[in-house]
Amino acid sequence: MKYGYADNKDKLLHRLRRVEGQVRGVAHMVEEDKYCIDILTQISAVEAAMDKVALELLRTHTKHCLMDDKIGPQNRDEKVEEVIGAVGRLLAK
Amino acid sequence: MKYGYADNKDKLLHRLRRVEGQVRGVAHMVEEDKYCIDILTQISAVEAAMDKVALELLRTHTKHCLMDDKIGPQNRDEKVEEVIGAVGRLLAK
Amino acid sequence: MKYGYADNKDKLLHRLRRVEGQVRGVAHMVEEDKYCIDILTQISAVEAAMDKVALELLRTHTKHCLMDDKIGPQNRDEKVEEVIGAVGRLLAK
Amino acid sequence: MKYGYADNKDKLLHRLRRVEGQVRGVAHMVEEDKYCIDILTQISAVEAAMDKVALELLRTHTKHCLMDDKIGPQNRDEKVEEVIGAVGRLLAK
Repeated sequence: MKYGYADNKDKLLHRLRRVEGQVRGVAHMVEEDKYCIDILTQISAVEAAMDKVALELLRTHTKHCLMDDKIGPQNRDEKVEEVIGAVGRLLAK
Repeated sequence: MKYGYADNKDKLLHRLRRVEGQVRGVAHMVEEDKYCIDILTQISAVEAAMDKVALELLRTHTKHCLMDDKIGPQNRDEKVEEVIGAVGRLLAK
Repeated sequence: MKYGYADNKDKLLHRLRRVEGQVRGVAHMVEEDKYCIDILTQISAVEAAMDKVALELLRTHTKHCLMDDKIGPQNRDEKVEEVIGAVGRLLAK
Repeated sequence: MKYGYADNKDKLLHRLRRVEGQVRGVAHMVEEDKYCIDILTQISAVEAAMDKVALELLRTHTKHCLMDDKIGPQNRDEKVEEVIGAVGRLLAK
């Protein structure tokens, strides 16, 4: 099955490759004994980048799965709970 | 110069390799059209893992750099501001 | 106009009164020179409680405003952006 | 006992009174059926304000409790763990 983010899969994958590179960059900083504070700043950047990927997924999920006219009312409640659960986990990590 | 985290460099690098793998895992999920909600859950896990790396760096930085008896009082204020700034960035990412 | 959260307004107000009391409790702790770490723990509890209020609002908004069949497709995109913006601000605070 | 934040107690209390007012403002918005998205934006502002109070407490705690020359080395480890725990709870709320 194709989910809603199929259209911007390339954009998402591009971003994730970059996050992967950022995490590798953090590892290099540790290897090269860089200053803790600078490494912490980079970690904040990694998390902010992951949040952007999450928001992009949430956007397309909301548009294509949640607001799909074919979803019946009972199924809707379930889908809403799924989304609220996912946002709750992002807020609490 | 060797910073305070030199002692647990291996532990930090091990964790960062795992985070890198997790990010790659998220990319695979996108490639294979996995369900958005499951991908979002994985993103929360990546961020939680990065937070743990950050806390570990903060721990060793506090022990070895901040509480170093050789730091003079003026330098201390500066060092504290650095740490508070780093924590602020982590909270606001 | 009545928005989607009208049905659980009492529940939301009850929670917000409690958060207000928690914030007042934090102020008392400061006034009575309580230990910093204990105050910080209470601040985390306040923020977690506010997150729960936010998730409740998000839940009802998604159910009643976002998934309302009367919303036309153009309006939907706008509404989705609003929600994504709000979640983004919660993640980045 | 007087803790490190005694010096800026007034500043902290002033901020906390304002946060309390903000939470009351959020309750009024709910009472008056304001738009969900606007309420969510206000909730983000409350949490950002609480984070600032937390950072201020962390700053004075670090300066006055953690970096106190009178703390022996054993006690230090314990104090560092306390701070890391507190930051961890703030990140995970």
